[in-house]
Amino acid sequence: MDRASIYHRPTDNYAYAYSIDKLHIRIRTKKNDLKNITLLYGDPFEVKENNWVHAEMPMSKTGSDELADYWLAVVTPPYRRLRYGFLLEDNQSKLYLGDKGFGDNRWTDVAYYFCFPFIHPSSVFNAPKWVKDTVWYQIFPERFANGNRFNDPEGTLPWGSTNPTTTNFFGGDLNGISKNIPYLKELGISGIYLTPIFKAHSNHKYDTIDYFEIDPQLGTKEEMKELVKACHENGIKVMLDAVFNHCGFYFSKFQHVLKHQENSPYKDWFHIKEFPIQTQPHPNYDTFGFVADMPKLNTANPLVKEYLLNVGRYWVKEFNIDGWRLDVANEVDHHFWREFRKEVRAIKSDLFLLGEIWHDSMPWLRGDQFDAVMNYPFTNNVISLFAKQTIDANQFIEKMTHVTHMYPSPINEVSFNLVGSHDTVRILTECSEDTARLKQIFNLLLTFTGTPCIFYGDEIGLTGTQDPECRKCMIWEKEKQDQDLFKHIQKLLGLRKEYTLLANEGTFRFIQVEENKDVVAYTRSKDNDIILILLNTRGTKTNYTIPLNLHGKVIHDIWNNKEYAANSDTLVATLDPYGFCFLFISLLNHPLSK
Amino acid sequence: MDRASIYHRPTDNYAYAYSIDKLHIRIRTKKNDLKNITLLYGDPFEVKENNWVHAEMPMSKTGSDELADYWLAVVTPPYRRLRYGFLLEDNQSKLYLGDKGFGDNRWTDVAYYFCFPFIHPSSVFNAPKWVKDTVWYQIFPERFANGNRFNDPEGTLPWGSTNPTTTNFFGGDLNGISKNIPYLKELGISGIYLTPIFKAHSNHKYDTIDYFEIDPQLGTKEEMKELVKACHENGIKVMLDAVFNHCGFYFSKFQHVLKHQENSPYKDWFHIKEFPIQTQPHPNYDTFGFVADMPKLNTANPLVKEYLLNVGRYWVKEFNIDGWRLDVANEVDHHFWREFRKEVRAIKSDLFLLGEIWHDSMPWLRGDQFDAVMNYPFTNNVISLFAKQTIDANQFIEKMTHVTHMYPSPINEVSFNLVGSHDTVRILTECSEDTARLKQIFNLLLTFTGTPCIFYGDEIGLTGTQDPECRKCMIWEKEKQDQDLFKHIQKLLGLRKEYTLLANEGTFRFIQVEENKDVVAYTRSKDNDIILILLNTRGTKTNYTIPLNLHGKVIHDIWNNKEYAANSDTLVATLDPYGFCFLFISLLNHPLSK
Repeated sequence: MDRASIYHRPTDNYAYAYSIDKLHIRIRTKKNDLKNITLLYGDPFEVKENNWVHAEMPMSKTGSDELADYWLAVVTPPYRRLRYGFLLEDNQSKLYLGDKGFGDNRWTDVAYYFCFPFIHPSSVFNAPKWVKDTVWYQIFPERFANGNRFNDPEGTLPWGSTNPTTTNFFGGDLNGISKNIPYLKELGISGIYLTPIFKAHSNHKYDTIDYFEIDPQLGTKEEMKELVKACHENGIKVMLDAVFNHCGFYFSKFQHVLKHQENSPYKDWFHIKEFPIQTQPHPNYDTFGFVADMPKLNTANPLVKEYLLNVGRYWVKEFNIDGWRLDVANEVDHHFWREFRKEVRAIKSDLFLLGEIWHDSMPWLRGDQFDAVMNYPFTNNVISLFAKQTIDANQFIEKMTHVTHMYPSPINEVSFNLVGSHDTVRILTECSEDTARLKQIFNLLLTFTGTPCIFYGDEIGLTGTQDPECRKCMIWEKEKQDQDLFKHIQKLLGLRKEYTLLANEGTFRFIQVEENKDVVAYTRSKDNDIILILLNTRGTKTNYTIPLNLHGKVIHDIWNNKEYAANSDTLVATLDPYGFCFLFISLLNHPLSK
Repeated sequence: MDRASIYHRPTDNYAYAYSIDKLHIRIRTKKNDLKNITLLYGDPFEVKENNWVHAEMPMSKTGSDELADYWLAVVTPPYRRLRYGFLLEDNQSKLYLGDKGFGDNRWTDVAYYFCFPFIHPSSVFNAPKWVKDTVWYQIFPERFANGNRFNDPEGTLPWGSTNPTTTNFFGGDLNGISKNIPYLKELGISGIYLTPIFKAHSNHKYDTIDYFEIDPQLGTKEEMKELVKACHENGIKVMLDAVFNHCGFYFSKFQHVLKHQENSPYKDWFHIKEFPIQTQPHPNYDTFGFVADMPKLNTANPLVKEYLLNVGRYWVKEFNIDGWRLDVANEVDHHFWREFRKEVRAIKSDLFLLGEIWHDSMPWLRGDQFDAVMNYPFTNNVISLFAKQTIDANQFIEKMTHVTHMYPSPINEVSFNLVGSHDTVRILTECSEDTARLKQIFNLLLTFTGTPCIFYGDEIGLTGTQDPECRKCMIWEKEKQDQDLFKHIQKLLGLRKEYTLLANEGTFRFIQVEENKDVVAYTRSKDNDIILILLNTRGTKTNYTIPLNLHGKVIHDIWNNKEYAANSDTLVATLDPYGFCFLFISLLNHPLSK
């Protein structure tokens, strides 16, 4: 048994409250090294004759990455307190693991066991309930639709007349979004995420001038209120983008400091290293990256903190938005985010908080800061598998198993999964404009654990390389839209609504089969119901076989709406190039005949 | 190279801000598996020609436990932001490790590297500066000294006339502590920690009746103020014990619920499962353990929270105490502790917060809750080594290396190290009353990294088995005290003051030598100065040899105040049974001739 590679610590992804009465206990072991793991557990204070009273439960393997196996036990502690240890077994030996390390014999003293002291209501990760059911649609307002020509900035170019640059404008606005709610409804999404709409200098508006004003090019506060109202009436949530790491160069307080230098009362709003302020070669004040136009805000200054908390509260209170997406969230301090969460949640208890973090995000996802982060590791692995084909299905499963096991389940369930954004190459362009591959990507995105987000225009075939080209104008002429793609995605969204297993209800599990490296297979399941999803990641026909007890079961092909009686011990599927199956399998009767 | 056992995650003990400009990056590898590790690091935004610009730094091995080696790099990021990865080398191969896993080649894309996004002032663990210099003395007020006979409860027994029971009283009080400040000064301690002094039912007073009153048996508020004032005048900090997990049975709100049952407005102050309230066989309300006399408080109730925060604020504000020791801290919710820290620190910015947690405490030590926890893993390992002799010096070093590497260094530096408390068997009793072993334990306690705590009476030879026997009356008659032991501990405290390397100044490092399993060796060092400490853990004479360049150096035996010229490549020490050395070695001249 390889003891050095066994990892458990009673925190984060290894021990957490799944609900007010259930704890998840996980452990990592070297791949294929262990045969069985048993959880030994009980209340810390149940001691009889100096002997700690405990129960046992076999742990189940929930997946493997390249190097490790992951095991899970779901426990309901009788008094909300838990002490626990592991009995580890391979073919030769037995070993115990507890808070003080490994041991050859079972300890009778409870002090040797790991401790999860108490499940409080606040121990449970509390992302808003509605998030798990949401399908997001990301809108870059300047490029989605021009609803009002009177607010177009000077020099606005005709819609879609040329490629976007870092400085040109096409006149998209809030009114354009409101007018296209029927389109969003038709597609079937249930939440929109708008990149920044506050007064700013650039076309992307990540360089805020005034956090309390709508950019006049995008509309008015009245129009914003109407947009939120119309969305809510149509069952669509609204999330805005807040840029608190830095402001724009033309933010009044920074301008004041530029003018008055060390005499400005706002000098401590920023991180200025020396006066006079210089922007070249590197700015002599902290910025986002080395961008002189984006001075970093000093969130440790109580005045700045209060100002930004006010911003956070204002748009929730006055405009009834449903979520905040927080830009460059990793570079703002944790203490600020803790206060931010408390303040905005006090106004709207089910407000969603999404952080922009591209790397390992555990420190922001401990329940006191964000509900989710933008899942770019998902994006990268999906692109490697389907678009660039640099990894095979097995490697994809290992990599995604690694990512999902980095976090507690409740975090994965609301993970903000995306296949592209205003910061990346368009997904169709990544696919070399091969829509067969793109469809497979959407099949995965819309049935994976977490909440999917569609970047505006991806559904009708918008292309574009890295920013600013990925921010092209939306195409509204039906004849220029890829209608086949639109219908495919629309159908997926419909299935997601019809089969709640695909959305929030079903436990996600990969099927890891060594023999076929072309097919990604996974299930979403609950009780006796299971949806099996098979995706051929390659442009060649393939056969896929998995052991599955199908005796007496009915298989319903929910994509093609066909039904088969099954009576075998294996499921064999033949998949066309980039072919796929969504199979509903139930012990009960046909789900549609309920 | 054993990849499965390599562990790093950019959080907790593996990546943390040591100061506003320094990051510590640590990694764990299988014991003796790797030869070299190099940290590759740079600013996330320094990219030239699509190639991330980075520097390199060799990592140093800071210790090994039974299964793993631990490596450290100390980095100063030029712009407070860091991306980094590891170059791992054994005799055969090279491997890279970054945020997306292992790779055979060095990545040019910064996205493949781990991220520590920004060092904020609030990223730095901020235990009060004074804590590192403090030597604590734990007092159980009812048993330390009876200063005022007029407040003795009915039935008070003559001082020390019999062994303590769970119900008897001996009349110790606050005035008794005040009167003995000269004794504490003579011993040389600099902080007292008092177990609870608020109005309660029992002799231990962990069953609070009134959090805003001093127990009349212990004294008055006036006497408490005098005690704090007198301590401060003598350079002694004062820490009180707060029991917020539960109250006592006679707490007025609980009594109200007992009387009025579900009609009491206080019913939500507790976790009552059903009415009427029952205490048998198990209480039908949550309690500490299954103790019906200690009903658990519902800290999720805003009224309870505000009440307890008020308690926290009151004693700081009105009595100017310096610290709170927080009882059963692990069973109270994290959200409560975050607010508690914020509130009491707002009144006194250098207040010390110590949690009672016996097991892995990482979730409470992330900078937002406690400054330290009671280091019982230290206690247990010390007892196993010296008192029970069930582990040898090598095993002790491995176990303590494991413990210290579970936490960031700033946490270890203020770790509350103890060798016994009101909750454990007396340390002299653990040593089978062998003072030679006890002295070695104090030699270690008072020179180890962290802040030591002496349990009242341990310094003069008090004995006793498990609670209540470990709570005997302090012995004040000189002739009954172990004066030799007292002088030994007094001398250690003196050395600790004279040589700041032994307290807060010196970096702690074990010396791991396979050959001699009897001797615990470690150094405290800074710049060119080093104190080498050798402790023979066994009752037999032993020789201890370590490679050490002593050419041109002077060795000063600071215990015996002797000086030796040294000119060899090894240090050879002969240690008597339970013998020890404290050797100050400097490249410079004799430290006393400065």
